[in-house]
Amino acid sequence: MTALLIRSLVPADRAAWEPLWHDYLAFYKTTVPAEIYDMTFARLTGGDADMAAFVATGANGDFLGIVHTIQHRHCWKIEKVIYLQDLFTVPAARGRGVARALIEKVYAYADSMGAPHVHWLTAEDNYAGRMLYDKVGRRGPFIRYTRPL
Amino acid sequence: MTALLIRSLVPADRAAWEPLWHDYLAFYKTTVPAEIYDMTFARLTGGDADMAAFVATGANGDFLGIVHTIQHRHCWKIEKVIYLQDLFTVPAARGRGVARALIEKVYAYADSMGAPHVHWLTAEDNYAGRMLYDKVGRRGPFIRYTRPL
Amino acid sequence: MTALLIRSLVPADRAAWEPLWHDYLAFYKTTVPAEIYDMTFARLTGGDADMAAFVATGANGDFLGIVHTIQHRHCWKIEKVIYLQDLFTVPAARGRGVARALIEKVYAYADSMGAPHVHWLTAEDNYAGRMLYDKVGRRGPFIRYTRPL
Amino acid sequence: MTALLIRSLVPADRAAWEPLWHDYLAFYKTTVPAEIYDMTFARLTGGDADMAAFVATGANGDFLGIVHTIQHRHCWKIEKVIYLQDLFTVPAARGRGVARALIEKVYAYADSMGAPHVHWLTAEDNYAGRMLYDKVGRRGPFIRYTRPL
Repeated sequence: MTALLIRSLVPADRAAWEPLWHDYLAFYKTTVPAEIYDMTFARLTGGDADMAAFVATGANGDFLGIVHTIQHRHCWKIEKVIYLQDLFTVPAARGRGVARALIEKVYAYADSMGAPHVHWLTAEDNYAGRMLYDKVGRRGPFIRYTRPL
Repeated sequence: MTALLIRSLVPADRAAWEPLWHDYLAFYKTTVPAEIYDMTFARLTGGDADMAAFVATGANGDFLGIVHTIQHRHCWKIEKVIYLQDLFTVPAARGRGVARALIEKVYAYADSMGAPHVHWLTAEDNYAGRMLYDKVGRRGPFIRYTRPL
Repeated sequence: MTALLIRSLVPADRAAWEPLWHDYLAFYKTTVPAEIYDMTFARLTGGDADMAAFVATGANGDFLGIVHTIQHRHCWKIEKVIYLQDLFTVPAARGRGVARALIEKVYAYADSMGAPHVHWLTAEDNYAGRMLYDKVGRRGPFIRYTRPL
Repeated sequence: MTALLIRSLVPADRAAWEPLWHDYLAFYKTTVPAEIYDMTFARLTGGDADMAAFVATGANGDFLGIVHTIQHRHCWKIEKVIYLQDLFTVPAARGRGVARALIEKVYAYADSMGAPHVHWLTAEDNYAGRMLYDKVGRRGPFIRYTRPL
């Protein structure tokens, strides 16, 4: 059984983090320019009070998964709530509870912040993800609209 | 034809705004305590740089509809994006383009802020709303999960 | 208040029925050849024991709506069940309960046949239809797949 | 690699077929009385021209999966179409292409009958099934309503 450690993302993780976020973005068939890698990483590791990230590492400190979160206001609440935006597990580490452990870390972080609400979006046909989300989360009736580009 | 004016919500609107937000919350079968009315209204009218609201008024200045927005960070973007959280038209004013005008005002506001993205959630069976949203927005494949209470 | 009569479709209705089915098919962005108009009408009006149709007429006998049904076997039941395939109300007659009356006629027909189950499919974004179906029917969790063409 | 044979269900299969259908029904949290086991099996194995079934067997003739089909009229078509109602793979045989082979057998059967259309329903959250159906079928926009019980 491989050890699994969940910890905050820190500035020294820049090189190890990049390929995971790259592959996450590729899953959603998108890319972002280098300046967004730089800016988002800086914000997630202390540069923006509303952003936080956690990493799952294995026995050798190798990166198994990452999660990015964003706090934001909510009209129905006094406190900010947490939007879990990006979640990724490296393919070789799937089935070992990495994503579940990262989501549970976000829940613990929410509790530590007093955030009353954690939410995320997923593609309707992200079946592998939803098998987990149905266990650790609750699907409500909401669907998402966006402004047309 | 009734005149329709869209403008920012301002502190003097407190009394006129309250029943619309009350009825909006009732549509979603919820209520919030008085302190949240106070805090959210204060934040929407200048108290929080991430929050903004617009109101649609008729010929006599009567309130026909309201919309509340929240800016937040987004990992894929340099700029903040806009979450359109609450949108309500009073029943007697429906079918007159109030909601469409409010959404278009949010789009103009997003442009003025340089916000690259506007998004919102709606219940899958909010048919009346979706008839409009399919015209002014784009439904993507995303569904929403939340942390269980 | 216009009178509304629901009755079985009969061979003499051929000319009055055709434009309604045409417009129904146009709603689903499809057309069928003349031979299918002929064959389906013949089957619906006595030519096939598994098929039946009902028409809603107004004060002058004008056609306001139609519904087509198909009986079929069901592995879980002894009796055949009823598939409500086509349902259409002419635009000028909408909002007068035509579709509801036609569905209720199908329910009565099902009862007369001993059919334990009536089901139908609709497009997820057929909002006007679903406003009615949510009242007279029950949406289950099922979605439809087809063999690729 | 275990051999996989797909063939028609025949009367001698009664005992081997029953537990698979039982477990399929249990997946949908339902049961049916003994008379429906008898009647449906008889209809599927020659007793009803509109019904057919196929079985997947392994090296020893053990039952790995079953599929039940029903032909029915369709207003838009001259020919009957095929409704694939029940599909089940025993848990120990999953991941070996049993369900795919059964669906492909149904497609070949449809071709042999001249049936222009094969369709089926599945629960929106049947993720394991949909991983396959997205490959061998096409999800359209349709959802299912039923008459309330």
